[in-house]
Amino acid sequence: MKQTLNFSLMDKLREECPLVHNMTNYVTVNDCANALLAIGGSPIMSDDEAECADITGISRALVMNIGTLNQRTIASMIKSGKKANETGIPVVFDPVGAGASSLRNETTKDILSQVKIAIIRGNLSELSYIAGLSVSTKGVDVAEEDMNHDAVAVAKKVAKMYETVVAITGKDDVVTDGDTVFVLSNGVSLLSKVTGTGCMTSAMLGAFAAVACENKDYDYVDAAALAISSMSIAGEISFEKYGQTGTGSFHIGIIDALSNMTANILQEKCKINIVRE
Amino acid sequence: MKQTLNFSLMDKLREECPLVHNMTNYVTVNDCANALLAIGGSPIMSDDEAECADITGISRALVMNIGTLNQRTIASMIKSGKKANETGIPVVFDPVGAGASSLRNETTKDILSQVKIAIIRGNLSELSYIAGLSVSTKGVDVAEEDMNHDAVAVAKKVAKMYETVVAITGKDDVVTDGDTVFVLSNGVSLLSKVTGTGCMTSAMLGAFAAVACENKDYDYVDAAALAISSMSIAGEISFEKYGQTGTGSFHIGIIDALSNMTANILQEKCKINIVRE
Amino acid sequence: MKQTLNFSLMDKLREECPLVHNMTNYVTVNDCANALLAIGGSPIMSDDEAECADITGISRALVMNIGTLNQRTIASMIKSGKKANETGIPVVFDPVGAGASSLRNETTKDILSQVKIAIIRGNLSELSYIAGLSVSTKGVDVAEEDMNHDAVAVAKKVAKMYETVVAITGKDDVVTDGDTVFVLSNGVSLLSKVTGTGCMTSAMLGAFAAVACENKDYDYVDAAALAISSMSIAGEISFEKYGQTGTGSFHIGIIDALSNMTANILQEKCKINIVRE
Repeated sequence: MKQTLNFSLMDKLREECPLVHNMTNYVTVNDCANALLAIGGSPIMSDDEAECADITGISRALVMNIGTLNQRTIASMIKSGKKANETGIPVVFDPVGAGASSLRNETTKDILSQVKIAIIRGNLSELSYIAGLSVSTKGVDVAEEDMNHDAVAVAKKVAKMYETVVAITGKDDVVTDGDTVFVLSNGVSLLSKVTGTGCMTSAMLGAFAAVACENKDYDYVDAAALAISSMSIAGEISFEKYGQTGTGSFHIGIIDALSNMTANILQEKCKINIVRE
Repeated sequence: MKQTLNFSLMDKLREECPLVHNMTNYVTVNDCANALLAIGGSPIMSDDEAECADITGISRALVMNIGTLNQRTIASMIKSGKKANETGIPVVFDPVGAGASSLRNETTKDILSQVKIAIIRGNLSELSYIAGLSVSTKGVDVAEEDMNHDAVAVAKKVAKMYETVVAITGKDDVVTDGDTVFVLSNGVSLLSKVTGTGCMTSAMLGAFAAVACENKDYDYVDAAALAISSMSIAGEISFEKYGQTGTGSFHIGIIDALSNMTANILQEKCKINIVRE
Repeated sequence: MKQTLNFSLMDKLREECPLVHNMTNYVTVNDCANALLAIGGSPIMSDDEAECADITGISRALVMNIGTLNQRTIASMIKSGKKANETGIPVVFDPVGAGASSLRNETTKDILSQVKIAIIRGNLSELSYIAGLSVSTKGVDVAEEDMNHDAVAVAKKVAKMYETVVAITGKDDVVTDGDTVFVLSNGVSLLSKVTGTGCMTSAMLGAFAAVACENKDYDYVDAAALAISSMSIAGEISFEKYGQTGTGSFHIGIIDALSNMTANILQEKCKINIVRE
């Protein structure tokens, strides 16, 4: 069982600046690109079926986010996902709003059955849906009725079902490969008042995963834990500066903090609990 | 005839945090989501025909904005609009650029004939087009030639034609249900140098309308007047702080001010004139 | 041969506020609109085949950017490009990622063969591809392998091939009509850590070109040089203020600086070298 979180992956990411192919929603795409740049990756966006596999082919990770799903891009996601599996790069899947509509539910199933996913990152409602629990997803936030699901149990179940790393973000965050469980406790509630903090986390996770994929010192649990911690700790840093100013400045302060993030800052501030059972 | 504007709707909105389904353009969608969050609503975006009615079905208001209209989403808008009418939630319609192209003109007519709209919000060129006046719409701003149209007359005409509340934003803003006319005089001209202040107003209007719909103390005139005042007054507050700094900071300051908006601030700063004829 | 850069075009742009039709990507579109507003233009976005020519028809320039190319908008770009050629307004083409996928390569060729372009603006990899050199485009940044291409030679070659003005942005920027060559040396490296600075430059170039098109005192070399200088110098100004704060604030500071840009500031700070051979 994994015993520690390897923070040096953060600095390694800045050295390597991996190209990350993002198939994401049009609401938060600009923030995803800027967060990726801030944390040390290089973003490229492409979702047309006629070119998406070409772009996946030159990238070091693929991030798929179904936040504004449409018929045109579903086929593209499957195509790029398969290409990523062929070339051996990690695929991050963010099932935004899974449980909220038939289209999202079916697409989630299609992607999970046709593409081998390295890391799934979502909220408790979304992962509960994937775990097969009855859910009350209301939009893109966790439904209150789903709050009492046990995040650790849900994450472990999905990790085993799909042999993948699962990250559930919320008040506390859970990251597991089905065996090791990390519980992370950073962050501020104001993060939920800026759109796209989850999407940005998934985008950055692509960059961390790209580096972990090619370095035996790191694994996808490290990648997920550091992407999540980067956002949570950036939120804490920005809150200290701008919490009283308003959510516009707080939003900008998050990007500022991400662009200054180092392994040292993460290690110093990260509140992590490794669950041993 | 309505005699007062009920400012407490602002605080009620923060208590309820209604989910608002936005079908909007890809230029300003991120700001729409962040403005909605800032004012106390919860945004969800969805425009694919295969899921849009599902999303409308879990929402408390629907906002339709034709800023970057395309064939794929026209059918979706009609479908979601009908679903909203079925479930009884308010529909806000922002006819961006109506008058500027045949597609926008025809879509505007289609939406108005097939969907019962609770509130139409636009500029004087757009509403003049809907009123059947000859217009010179040039893009998304009011054409100079249209400036001499009488905003109050245009608004009342459209309100009666479609039995709806009409809000025309401009130097002065007009809100009417065809009977009561509120004229609002807040705002700064720099608001026109940030893209999407109109779209954000419409998005927030969805949240105010959602709350008004289910509380007999409020109506859609209150909802429209408070959404518009929130943006205008946020503009004034931000201008005081950032007017000399530049439009980037002014933009962020608007979101900051929206996130701190209260019924008290609105009531204290709102310049309103109730027109009695 | 042209001997000077005519900075007064900057102030002329603020007087005229031309409407610029942008067909661009959904990653940076909001920044493109805000940069255009900041520099004194008026943006309109439209990409549906059923209306794009109408919108081009009321505009004073057309900017086409293939950053998130899709099948739906390729036909629209050709259609609007032809309309722009008919009405005699300048077309700016930003071949984002040309060389990175077959779709982008073919679309680039289609556009260049069917539409008369006034100005092509891109990076050295993209222009090298258009010049027919072998390239190693990796995403949207210049590939290291392409760095040793001679930017001046590439720019002049493409300018002659397509009888157009070519602008290659990079550490130094090159602008040429095939005869006069301007080399511009402003900017800071942090500009590459904010997504869309190239796209924003192209969008602003549309506004400068619109004004140059109708004023015999200016040409498209002036337009390209001033659009590029506006971004580079805004980057320098913002870096001085926010370089240590982070890329979020730096991004906002760029828009601030653009909104305060004048012919005097440009003239005072512009580092230009006119190459005579």
